[in-house]
Amino acid sequence: MTPSATPAYRRLSVEERRSQLLDAALSLFAHRTPEDVSLDDVAEAAGVSRPLVYRYFPGGKQQLYEAALRSAADVLQQCFGEPREGPLLPRLSRALDRYLAFVDEHDTGFSALLRGGSVVETSRTTAIVDGVRRSAAEHIYEHLGVTDPGPRLRMTVRTWITAVEAASLIWLDEGKQPPAGELRDWLVEQFVAVLTVTAGRDPQTAVLVDALAEDGRD
Amino acid sequence: MTPSATPAYRRLSVEERRSQLLDAALSLFAHRTPEDVSLDDVAEAAGVSRPLVYRYFPGGKQQLYEAALRSAADVLQQCFGEPREGPLLPRLSRALDRYLAFVDEHDTGFSALLRGGSVVETSRTTAIVDGVRRSAAEHIYEHLGVTDPGPRLRMTVRTWITAVEAASLIWLDEGKQPPAGELRDWLVEQFVAVLTVTAGRDPQTAVLVDALAEDGRD
Repeated sequence: MTPSATPAYRRLSVEERRSQLLDAALSLFAHRTPEDVSLDDVAEAAGVSRPLVYRYFPGGKQQLYEAALRSAADVLQQCFGEPREGPLLPRLSRALDRYLAFVDEHDTGFSALLRGGSVVETSRTTAIVDGVRRSAAEHIYEHLGVTDPGPRLRMTVRTWITAVEAASLIWLDEGKQPPAGELRDWLVEQFVAVLTVTAGRDPQTAVLVDALAEDGRD
Repeated sequence: MTPSATPAYRRLSVEERRSQLLDAALSLFAHRTPEDVSLDDVAEAAGVSRPLVYRYFPGGKQQLYEAALRSAADVLQQCFGEPREGPLLPRLSRALDRYLAFVDEHDTGFSALLRGGSVVETSRTTAIVDGVRRSAAEHIYEHLGVTDPGPRLRMTVRTWITAVEAASLIWLDEGKQPPAGELRDWLVEQFVAVLTVTAGRDPQTAVLVDALAEDGRD
């Protein structure tokens, strides 16, 4: 064995060890339901002993799950980052591409988390998920150039975000069909369609829809 | 006191007593979070002793909550019932009116249930909520006259149902603004808009959208 193939023998710093355990936990929680992941699984995946896992995460599976969820939430929020340049809808498409790649990579865990009723679900895990939703909405307002979204625009953006989540779960249920590219385009078109409906009764949204149409013509 | 004002002194049958306790529980769970309802509250609201509540619901609060949720789910599914007569969109409007009245009457409990992370949430409560969602989708397919909805139509209908839930929660957060009638019209227009987007890539949905336009002209 070469030294690089035996990472368990290298002395890791506290931060490195913690991050190695978290990575192992996140991979397991991504592809299994929380019910199907044990502390022994995490220890085995990280190539360490169970007591070592407990030393870093004395709260056991619940604490590991929350830490893994927090780190997944950070990754997901980075998906939303997109330079404020060029036409708006292609920016939304690129962010959705990254989001759908994330959903694809964390399929089982993503479903288990959003479907609710899991043994590891608490008000803390719900707050983490809500934080991601809020961040998604804020990114959208920023890209739309809106600093003070009114109630009708907020309702439209927030319901569309929920529709994206629902569509992602159905997509996973349906064996990731239709292809991600078609789903992405459909979601972008839905976004324009729901904004257009709201524009009929909300002047703030009407201005945005006009700008979007203008934008597409550039 | 007249005899009719002292129901607690009348001997109730097992079924009547159970139903009286459930009604009391449902009223409490409708307007408080599950965390804020105790067995003592239910006993007091029903005018009975705590041991009597336990005799009927030995599983305590969790069992009462699930039974109350099941009875609320039945009520909600009845909201979706609508004769298959006349143009389709007014039928959808009437069903949404009844649904929004239900949301209005069960505000706090509805939010707590759908937001997740509550101590009483289990895979069983999630299954009850999913059953209501499935029932809503089936009612829609029936009214659309579709016996075998394809994946794109199913995804559209299911994401719209989720968007309705999300809009209801936001509506409660926003102090029930905009007025229920505006929210209902907005949701109906969203329904047509999202179906129209799907029609662009799904022949089955395209036929339905044509029929809806035809329907509106009658």
